[in-house]
Amino acid sequence: MSGYPSLSVPPEGDFFRSKWVDPPKGLEFNDPAVLPEGFRAGGVACGIQGKGATDLGAVVCDSDEVRSAILLTSNAAAAAPIRVCRDSLWQGEIRAVIVNSGNANAATGEQGIEDALSMRNSLATDLGLAPQSVAVAETGVIGVPLEMETVINGIPELVSDLEGNAGLSGAVRFSEAIMTTDKWPKRVSLRVDGITLSAQAKGAGMIEPGFATMLCFVQTDAVLTNPEAALRQAVSGSFERITVDGQMSTNDTVLLQASGTSGKELPDRLLDAVLLQLALEIVSDGEGASRVGRVEVTGAADQEEAELVARKIANSPLVKTALLGRDPNWGRIAQAAGQALAGQDIGELGPEVIEAGDIAGGGREAELALRLDRGDGSAHVFTSDLTHEYIVINAEYTT
Amino acid sequence: MSGYPSLSVPPEGDFFRSKWVDPPKGLEFNDPAVLPEGFRAGGVACGIQGKGATDLGAVVCDSDEVRSAILLTSNAAAAAPIRVCRDSLWQGEIRAVIVNSGNANAATGEQGIEDALSMRNSLATDLGLAPQSVAVAETGVIGVPLEMETVINGIPELVSDLEGNAGLSGAVRFSEAIMTTDKWPKRVSLRVDGITLSAQAKGAGMIEPGFATMLCFVQTDAVLTNPEAALRQAVSGSFERITVDGQMSTNDTVLLQASGTSGKELPDRLLDAVLLQLALEIVSDGEGASRVGRVEVTGAADQEEAELVARKIANSPLVKTALLGRDPNWGRIAQAAGQALAGQDIGELGPEVIEAGDIAGGGREAELALRLDRGDGSAHVFTSDLTHEYIVINAEYTT
Repeated sequence: MSGYPSLSVPPEGDFFRSKWVDPPKGLEFNDPAVLPEGFRAGGVACGIQGKGATDLGAVVCDSDEVRSAILLTSNAAAAAPIRVCRDSLWQGEIRAVIVNSGNANAATGEQGIEDALSMRNSLATDLGLAPQSVAVAETGVIGVPLEMETVINGIPELVSDLEGNAGLSGAVRFSEAIMTTDKWPKRVSLRVDGITLSAQAKGAGMIEPGFATMLCFVQTDAVLTNPEAALRQAVSGSFERITVDGQMSTNDTVLLQASGTSGKELPDRLLDAVLLQLALEIVSDGEGASRVGRVEVTGAADQEEAELVARKIANSPLVKTALLGRDPNWGRIAQAAGQALAGQDIGELGPEVIEAGDIAGGGREAELALRLDRGDGSAHVFTSDLTHEYIVINAEYTT
Repeated sequence: MSGYPSLSVPPEGDFFRSKWVDPPKGLEFNDPAVLPEGFRAGGVACGIQGKGATDLGAVVCDSDEVRSAILLTSNAAAAAPIRVCRDSLWQGEIRAVIVNSGNANAATGEQGIEDALSMRNSLATDLGLAPQSVAVAETGVIGVPLEMETVINGIPELVSDLEGNAGLSGAVRFSEAIMTTDKWPKRVSLRVDGITLSAQAKGAGMIEPGFATMLCFVQTDAVLTNPEAALRQAVSGSFERITVDGQMSTNDTVLLQASGTSGKELPDRLLDAVLLQLALEIVSDGEGASRVGRVEVTGAADQEEAELVARKIANSPLVKTALLGRDPNWGRIAQAAGQALAGQDIGELGPEVIEAGDIAGGGREAELALRLDRGDGSAHVFTSDLTHEYIVINAEYTT
């Protein structure tokens, strides 16, 4: 809109393209269509989004030894699928998940709950699974009832896609079925030390994590003795550390399924690295984003204070526009930090404690740092710049 | 940038042009150059801003019976002038204030404190006042030391402007001297029930009140027995209720001076109405703003909760872009409210409790309302829309 760069294609290079991600050694990448043994996925265009877009997908684990963990948004006005997963899902034994994009089924009242249950039950019946072993996730506009006939009519086609494409390109279609304003699919399949891990994520706007305001699905054939602990740890270092617009979605869901069929444990740091790269993909694809900033605060009174200050800086529209304009405006960082601790006195903050030079000099990934002198608390948050395209997308995107 | 309207002139009509302001009856407007008896003001172009812009101003009360109150930002990294006013000002007996625009003298360390004291002392000496009876306020870029030679050289000219223009056009020049990214001066002079009240304000960006993120100066010849209580009440209903970008400045200052020479008390609601209209001018002139929204939350558990929810909605970039796009997207209001109360459960919020129709149908002033069912807490906040121009201003405005 104004000569500023904006991305319409993902950055080039391997999946682990961020300098902030440190994957374990010895990885080999698969085609993203490859799922671990025991998993199938599929995606079809059922008509929610229109224009032939793939908008209904599922992932199924055929092993009844599956172990799983799911994390759901903490938004107090959570959507129907979140409530269904919260209330009646066997969260440790999730066999399948059904996902639609184009409609979040949020703020849709009792009807919304019925619709989410209906989607879930329909897939469960067709697959011969207990309804409580099927998760449901939805993303898209808020406040509009699902066209249930459209969704239900699409499920047989989805099931036949699952059946016809076991281990084939279903995972690719699934990764496309979950996209809304995303510019590129976020997905990976890799193997290391005898295990396979694949993941598909989506997210571009309404991103600031309670833990995570997006959808992410991870499958592995590794043995996970405590999938919830593993997932919580990986999410705390990834989806909990990103913001695009400081907005927490009503629909965020992260699901990890482990079939255990490889008989081997998950290598250290693998899940952490995959989720961090996917989280950074989401920031990098933040609505209209052209750059990603890593805001680090050290020397805060405690970790909670460090989080507060880092998030205030990361969400400041003045900092985000400075990132766009490549203006190393450390005064805006000082202002935001001072606002985060309003009512206290942290003295004046100048360039001796603020590193902002990367805003001007850095590339696509820029580092900002603030060093306080109040204690040992530290935290970091990843953020995107604020561009004209954010406004175009959000002033013209209609419910 | 995209066919959206943006204002470059103030809205037309009388000073009290907002539908949300209810001034007392019987008002008559003066030319904005008219100050109450006993006050003088002036403004000169000393060269801080360059291009001949008026950038140094002062208001003086000639009565040593003056009563005053001053409210200062609670930003924890407050600027030098704030610290000077906090530490060594006779806050109840302020005779004069000196203000510059173009440089906030924030994050300028010990030198900044010395410079603010030097400005203050220089004016005090020239006017024969005690330094502790002179306030200092500054606004503009952060983190750049004041060019003190420029400022100090401008003070004699400022003093001669004050002397030569007692009661003449000095107040108009003063109202211009305090402007930065403002598109129009914010000022008024009026009389009612035998008293005169005048005010000058500035503010367009970095606006969200701890109490108020802007500068405002009010003069009256009314008798004020408790100026601090009067000012706090008026500010709590005005500058504390606005946001443009959710950013709290390091330099906010509101000063009220009352000479008492009329021998009459201030009419009820007058100060409240003037400060509310000035606050709404600031939102209306918010960087790039084309519309003002009034966000009301009722039925919250308590007032604190209502504030939290109202501010989350008012600062949501999704709500602000919906206001721009005239998209009555109540789902975004539901999402923001749910985020404000994350971790709790307030159920799904739909159109039965959210009024957003004014976003599409309303004019320049649109009303948004959310009715919760948790208690008697209520609060309202005024906000601006988020436009392309905000990004142009803030991605290209350099330290």
